[in-house]
Amino acid sequence: MCGHCGCDTQPPVQTRVIDLHRDLMDANHRQAAHNRAYFHRQRLTALNLVSSPGAGKTTLLEITLQQLQGRRPALVIEGDQQTELDAARIRATGTPAVQVQTGQACHLDASMVHGALHELPPAPGGLLFIENVGNLICPAQFDLGERARVVLVSVTEGDDKPLKYPGIFRDADLLLITKTDLLPHVNFDPARCLAHARRIRPQLPALQLSATSAEGLDGWLDWLRQLDTEGD
Amino acid sequence: MCGHCGCDTQPPVQTRVIDLHRDLMDANHRQAAHNRAYFHRQRLTALNLVSSPGAGKTTLLEITLQQLQGRRPALVIEGDQQTELDAARIRATGTPAVQVQTGQACHLDASMVHGALHELPPAPGGLLFIENVGNLICPAQFDLGERARVVLVSVTEGDDKPLKYPGIFRDADLLLITKTDLLPHVNFDPARCLAHARRIRPQLPALQLSATSAEGLDGWLDWLRQLDTEGD
Repeated sequence: MCGHCGCDTQPPVQTRVIDLHRDLMDANHRQAAHNRAYFHRQRLTALNLVSSPGAGKTTLLEITLQQLQGRRPALVIEGDQQTELDAARIRATGTPAVQVQTGQACHLDASMVHGALHELPPAPGGLLFIENVGNLICPAQFDLGERARVVLVSVTEGDDKPLKYPGIFRDADLLLITKTDLLPHVNFDPARCLAHARRIRPQLPALQLSATSAEGLDGWLDWLRQLDTEGD
Repeated sequence: MCGHCGCDTQPPVQTRVIDLHRDLMDANHRQAAHNRAYFHRQRLTALNLVSSPGAGKTTLLEITLQQLQGRRPALVIEGDQQTELDAARIRATGTPAVQVQTGQACHLDASMVHGALHELPPAPGGLLFIENVGNLICPAQFDLGERARVVLVSVTEGDDKPLKYPGIFRDADLLLITKTDLLPHVNFDPARCLAHARRIRPQLPALQLSATSAEGLDGWLDWLRQLDTEGD
């Protein structure tokens, strides 16, 4: 009995969740390993882009794909709960894109990515951008088989986000601080954001950019270039 | 066998998830009903504030609590994966606050709120603000026993968010468009955002405000005043 409000205390439901969670994670790891081997054979460098909703992932991809055009093949997998909006924006740049509509699911998993791969043309030596569902929490646990995980934090979100949502930074390979054109109008300190992120992931590389003003875009394109296609 | 890359097709894991999901939802509904009855007895009007990370929930609460001071009692439950940062900010306004650190969990559920209630003083006739974990997806499914659900969308996130994350708008009682001081610097049409939200939830009321400039704050305070304390 709960003395405060007279309710029956209920058995903790967590006990049953954890076992299933392990099964799900094991299945995802197997599928991610399969995807990784496939990317290796296809000489595809896969990136998993994660962030809050509205941090500017699609806008960044649009400008990045324009820059890559004629230089390096690229493919895109878009994850959203609903709509084909983002895949349509990507296709308008001339890049093949598949939209995964996750419905109730709050993240992409390795099997969704695997399914989407079947609908994309080969692009040996190219880049595969996987734009995850906008969510700073759930995608953290799902390896997609990617070469690198890029976490975007926009300057409008607050520089405390790495402390509040540490899981997504734990396996990150790059922190990308976006919308820097808005810095004069918000209370956000990029150095503090990075310091917070490095408490979770020491030595995490970081870049700043604005997809609107194109400031910082060269650094991002350089970072993409130096990523080898051979996996870890 | 998957013809594309030679893998064994795996049995769909979804089948096992759905059954457990129903059990979890049933347990949550029971706990939410218990919370609702408790709020009714205590004459507490509970609000569930949901949004993407960094949409300005805590900043809105700070300014709201300052306005309520001396007029109406208020309590706050803060949800975050980690840190006590937000509860500390709320306590600095003189309002009692409990921080729930959800760990791996991506949302508050009714039992977490129930646990937090035990640590708060009585506040008959008052407002209880429950600031959910920053996440536009997972909190949608978890009734906390609240009187009203308020969805915040900041103008920096893009006005397509209701279409992409419809679940959170389905049971919303108010759309609060925040950070309107940034409207001159971003490509966001409040009317379009509201039209998108009303495709999911017809007649959804909406307000716009900036917690920085205090523009629109009166409308929000009026809306709070007109919420009765008797539940639905």
